[in-house]
Amino acid sequence: MSSIEKLVILLTIRVVAQNNVKPDKIQEFIGLCKKLVEETVKEKGCIEYGLYQELNNPGILTMLEEWRDESSVNEHLNSNHFRELVPLFSEYLEKETEIRIYKKKLL
Amino acid sequence: MSSIEKLVILLTIRVVAQNNVKPDKIQEFIGLCKKLVEETVKEKGCIEYGLYQELNNPGILTMLEEWRDESSVNEHLNSNHFRELVPLFSEYLEKETEIRIYKKKLL
Repeated sequence: MSSIEKLVILLTIRVVAQNNVKPDKIQEFIGLCKKLVEETVKEKGCIEYGLYQELNNPGILTMLEEWRDESSVNEHLNSNHFRELVPLFSEYLEKETEIRIYKKKLL
Repeated sequence: MSSIEKLVILLTIRVVAQNNVKPDKIQEFIGLCKKLVEETVKEKGCIEYGLYQELNNPGILTMLEEWRDESSVNEHLNSNHFRELVPLFSEYLEKETEIRIYKKKLL
């Protein structure tokens, strides 16, 4: 990997968005996320955007994301698919989505 | 990316280990993690192992990890550097590390 490639990786934004889904709503929630993922991965600044299920708790469904920079994240938050689909999440969740945004890789 | 490369990525293990560090212990905690990261990235099954600081809360210091498979994770948990350093974390933390292990990429 070149020095420039390493630098680009250090400057990306990483997002971990953890959803605690009601046990009887897991399949419906995954269905809802499908369109969101399909549209989001087409966004220019999206490096990774995938839905993962926790090994020991199938109700924990987390989006692991990587974005080129902060403006890419903001474009995503203002995209039609985000604004249309994410407000529908609440009825499937036991509590609000926990969103952690990591800008700085320390080590 | 070839089909085989895509398949390998789908089968990796992703770990998110979130530490809530006491405000006056952040620098010391980072120092403690330095040796852990340096040794861990040398492990054969380690694809990614990096310490990230949350954008809006500098006390949230999270290890974002990717491992080739479950046996790589187990080797890591039994490594000398893990067993020596991770038990020292507790004195720096406000609460226990929240560890989420994701095996299955759904979307």
